[in-house]
Amino acid sequence: MLIIGEKLNSAIPPVREAVRNRDRAFVQDLARRQVEGGASLLDVNTAQGANEVEDMEWLVRAVQEVVDVPLCIDSVNPGAVERALQIHRGKAMLNSISMEESRITGMLPLVKEYGCSVVALTVDDGGIPKTVEDRMRIAGRLVDLLAREKIDLSEVYFDPLALPVAVSTDNALIFFQSLTEIKKAFGVKTISGLSNVSHSLPKRKLINRYFLTICMHSGMDAVILDPLDRKLMSAVVTTEMLLGKDPFCRNYLKAYRGGALEE
Amino acid sequence: MLIIGEKLNSAIPPVREAVRNRDRAFVQDLARRQVEGGASLLDVNTAQGANEVEDMEWLVRAVQEVVDVPLCIDSVNPGAVERALQIHRGKAMLNSISMEESRITGMLPLVKEYGCSVVALTVDDGGIPKTVEDRMRIAGRLVDLLAREKIDLSEVYFDPLALPVAVSTDNALIFFQSLTEIKKAFGVKTISGLSNVSHSLPKRKLINRYFLTICMHSGMDAVILDPLDRKLMSAVVTTEMLLGKDPFCRNYLKAYRGGALEE
Repeated sequence: MLIIGEKLNSAIPPVREAVRNRDRAFVQDLARRQVEGGASLLDVNTAQGANEVEDMEWLVRAVQEVVDVPLCIDSVNPGAVERALQIHRGKAMLNSISMEESRITGMLPLVKEYGCSVVALTVDDGGIPKTVEDRMRIAGRLVDLLAREKIDLSEVYFDPLALPVAVSTDNALIFFQSLTEIKKAFGVKTISGLSNVSHSLPKRKLINRYFLTICMHSGMDAVILDPLDRKLMSAVVTTEMLLGKDPFCRNYLKAYRGGALEE
Repeated sequence: MLIIGEKLNSAIPPVREAVRNRDRAFVQDLARRQVEGGASLLDVNTAQGANEVEDMEWLVRAVQEVVDVPLCIDSVNPGAVERALQIHRGKAMLNSISMEESRITGMLPLVKEYGCSVVALTVDDGGIPKTVEDRMRIAGRLVDLLAREKIDLSEVYFDPLALPVAVSTDNALIFFQSLTEIKKAFGVKTISGLSNVSHSLPKRKLINRYFLTICMHSGMDAVILDPLDRKLMSAVVTTEMLLGKDPFCRNYLKAYRGGALEE
């Protein structure tokens, strides 16, 4: 399971402030701690606005001064994404493309030019699809488009986009089925964030943890999460062991001995 | 998900003492609390020995004085099981039959005579099978035997028997696949306890909870567990919601409002 740390996101007010104030110590500390917590990549997101290109450049440079992991460049602004890709050391990930016209014209050329890996959302200008079939249809169109553009599909992570279970009882189930079906039909990798599914319900962390376990059992390859949440990271380690991906329970026992496992 | 409370088990020293001393208040309190905690059946287990038949009769009567749920009669002693079935009010469950010769001769006639539901372990006199295929083979023989004896298969819960993940990396995965395959091949119900898989590892409750979630996602119908473990019961409620079995999140929100959800 590829863990992408989600904390350097300007939707979080202290992060937005730190980027605005060029508070290098703050963002570098958050970067270091996420990698120590188990992240293999770090998402970096900047607030939309006149300074986004400069903000993104500053953020990417600040983070790469202290950690060696690749960054997941998270912005809807092609200018900010391109600046990040120009200065990023190593192979970045781009978050995200989709079948929305603005993403196809704005982001797809950058994926080709910079050869980064990329998150592909199964959404088009009609909005987030409601059914498994609609997600499959959009995923199929994305696969065709990426193949035409000669983009290596093994570098693409499809996100079928979870909708809140509070809105419709079957929403999580539809997401799990979409993960499985997309992998089966197209042989591609899958990814998700964890917060949408629990939207507007209490005790969201509880929901997010069991959601992640079922996603992992459904074959999900990567996840964007908070690696500083010890209970959540304990869920990852435990679930990987149960899915036969931890020979001799080595990672589980190492996490236990390091005091990282929290019941 | 059918929840069977596991606490009235004489392998637990205070329970064994309570049965020996005919401590009615102790066992009745444990029965009541398990039902309040969410159990739909209660397992009752007596220690092997000269007094088992009387112990079982006393235990069944004591428990049924205070709760209305059916009991799951858990003993390898056919005499104790028969006494329990004779006096049990309502339809009991028998724990368990298997392809072991002693269970076929000792227990199968009781299932026929008393028309109880029953746990069927995929084990024979060769011991617990190691592979999915071996479990399927024994399950197939059990299905044939039960059909020949005209036992209603919809009342039979197959337990593919989890082995510890500490013994072999794939043991949990083999169990999940066995659950899915047995349901698919024979259209029968499935069941499990939670403790075997985590045997000899630290933080076992953590393992048991995520194991249960994956079992539920694999289609498991019933589980024998500790309904007084609030984190575990929170996992059940949350997982049922994620699997589309909680319309309008009613049970989840009810558990939350009742203070039963524990992160």
